[in-house]
Amino acid sequence: MTTDTVIALDAMGGDRAPEIVVSGAALALERYPKLKYLFYGDEAQIKPILDLHPGLAKASDIHHTPDIITSDMKPSLALRQGRRSSMRLALNAVAQREAGSVVSAGNTGALMAMAKFVLKTLPGIDRPAIATIMPTQVGESVILDLGANVECDAENLVQFALMGAIFCRTVLGIKDPTIGLLNIGTEELKGHDEVRMAATILRERPIPGSFYGFVEGNDIALGTVDVVVTDGFTGNIVLKTVEGTAKLMVHFLRHSFAASLSARLGYLLARGAMQKLKLRTDPRRYNGAMFLGLQGVCVKSHGGTDHEGFANAIGVAHDLMTRHLNDRIHEELSRQYGVVEPLTIQPAILTDEVE
Amino acid sequence: MTTDTVIALDAMGGDRAPEIVVSGAALALERYPKLKYLFYGDEAQIKPILDLHPGLAKASDIHHTPDIITSDMKPSLALRQGRRSSMRLALNAVAQREAGSVVSAGNTGALMAMAKFVLKTLPGIDRPAIATIMPTQVGESVILDLGANVECDAENLVQFALMGAIFCRTVLGIKDPTIGLLNIGTEELKGHDEVRMAATILRERPIPGSFYGFVEGNDIALGTVDVVVTDGFTGNIVLKTVEGTAKLMVHFLRHSFAASLSARLGYLLARGAMQKLKLRTDPRRYNGAMFLGLQGVCVKSHGGTDHEGFANAIGVAHDLMTRHLNDRIHEELSRQYGVVEPLTIQPAILTDEVE
Repeated sequence: MTTDTVIALDAMGGDRAPEIVVSGAALALERYPKLKYLFYGDEAQIKPILDLHPGLAKASDIHHTPDIITSDMKPSLALRQGRRSSMRLALNAVAQREAGSVVSAGNTGALMAMAKFVLKTLPGIDRPAIATIMPTQVGESVILDLGANVECDAENLVQFALMGAIFCRTVLGIKDPTIGLLNIGTEELKGHDEVRMAATILRERPIPGSFYGFVEGNDIALGTVDVVVTDGFTGNIVLKTVEGTAKLMVHFLRHSFAASLSARLGYLLARGAMQKLKLRTDPRRYNGAMFLGLQGVCVKSHGGTDHEGFANAIGVAHDLMTRHLNDRIHEELSRQYGVVEPLTIQPAILTDEVE
Repeated sequence: MTTDTVIALDAMGGDRAPEIVVSGAALALERYPKLKYLFYGDEAQIKPILDLHPGLAKASDIHHTPDIITSDMKPSLALRQGRRSSMRLALNAVAQREAGSVVSAGNTGALMAMAKFVLKTLPGIDRPAIATIMPTQVGESVILDLGANVECDAENLVQFALMGAIFCRTVLGIKDPTIGLLNIGTEELKGHDEVRMAATILRERPIPGSFYGFVEGNDIALGTVDVVVTDGFTGNIVLKTVEGTAKLMVHFLRHSFAASLSARLGYLLARGAMQKLKLRTDPRRYNGAMFLGLQGVCVKSHGGTDHEGFANAIGVAHDLMTRHLNDRIHEELSRQYGVVEPLTIQPAILTDEVE
């Protein structure tokens, strides 16, 4: 039996859980009618919402647990005290191969700590990374790490590059993805030791794509490369800076339009265009950060998103799961480093058909 | 004699030098009629442009030198071989107190290396930092370091906080500036050792302002604090990410407006509003990165700016110079750490009137 259509959902994670989790799952089910869901959380809260969506109810099981990981709980505490939490049980479902992926809008740090503990890293990957897709002037790029690892050595960065490139190939269909290391200049001597050493390794080692070299902050939005690689400290700050700047631009735009009658009239006429801009830069469209490098698919939704955003996060999990991203990463690592250890918890997916 | 009105200009730095340097100086002179300029560079190129501005010519001296620091020259090479370059001679003018400040649109790394060598750091400051003002939803904030120091220890970050706060007080007139350390979360345990240690120091030590705590990437545009402190690696990438994201939003906006007839009509009506947005987010408005922590005022203009942007960079130098920012930093350091060493190269400005 394949679990490639089963998604475990942490029904209690996020600001408006379980409402947006359930209604997001309903929306995602319209898009991917073959999906099945395992909801983990407080049945008394989940069931009434599920009952509003008869189609969804048929495709879902509820696994009741009263325990919740709160948004301010420290990862170490969540690990120790959250063994029966909705988040942990949803992760367990993936580890026990009852589900092919897990989606949570809960506490990021706790989710990463638990995911590492429960799912383990892929053989050959020292540290998992958080990745997301970002819009650019020419399309989309993937950027990682967004906060899983505050400090990274050169080998970590190289592994992130490899995982990002395989994501591009497997999920985005880019055959020869270009990879850039985020730095403060494009010359070889720029940056700290780790990023320079990573560049040296990426220039020498065969990689699934092409190493472009260093890229700078403005290259992200330009779409200079398909994969932007950085440490989790810089990546997290970059991601939030992009969000903040986009909001600032919309704020300025709104003020400009409110400033005169002709501008307000113009706004009415251009409403469609503005709507399109809003859609194009809608953070919900890019909701669903991927935890790459684990023996199982784990996707983190923004905690403040709505059902549309949560449905998109489910879509990300669906893509990673059905394209067997982790198998592809494992294969590439085996090719590169002769990693022969079998995957410890998901052997079944290795024998699935290769696309 | 005071040199508070004399600015040394590296006439040969930047993509369109010396044209934009001279015409930028002319524009700044209209704004600050008391300014005098010392132009350093190729007289044969400078003089014809200067002659187009009779008022400017009267307020200026040309110091001829044929040597130029190119934009791709390594800082170490610029230091060794650039002793007669326009950039170096302009810096020398400040060190020799012939000018109160220097503005260059040339090679940033070379300018910083030379500025450190020629002007020396202020007693009590271990490393200079690059700072700039950024627009926010509620006004403006200052952010530093933007690339002078790839790696910073806690004490460096604390010194940046102090310099940024004094800049807010002295130049922006904010009596009790709030200071935030850029991090990947607001909880005490987030981030790497350096940023956590800097927070501990800032919580304990009396500072010219209020320590807010950690801020995240989105807080920059929100204007959560007056001073955003970070290391030069993160700061440089953040600055360029902001630029890239702002351009991406304008790109999307243009596409949206071009998409339909009503949107194009709307655009015509809203042209004034769009113009206002453009002005508000115009990078030329925020041109002029400040090198803080040196015994002399040094301002770096963007290399690709036009005369309007260069005039703004001169405006920044004018403000730092006339508000005696470096004296205020030196005084604060003396108060804090009992630094009693006199300034080695600018003793005169210490005896100027205190505002």
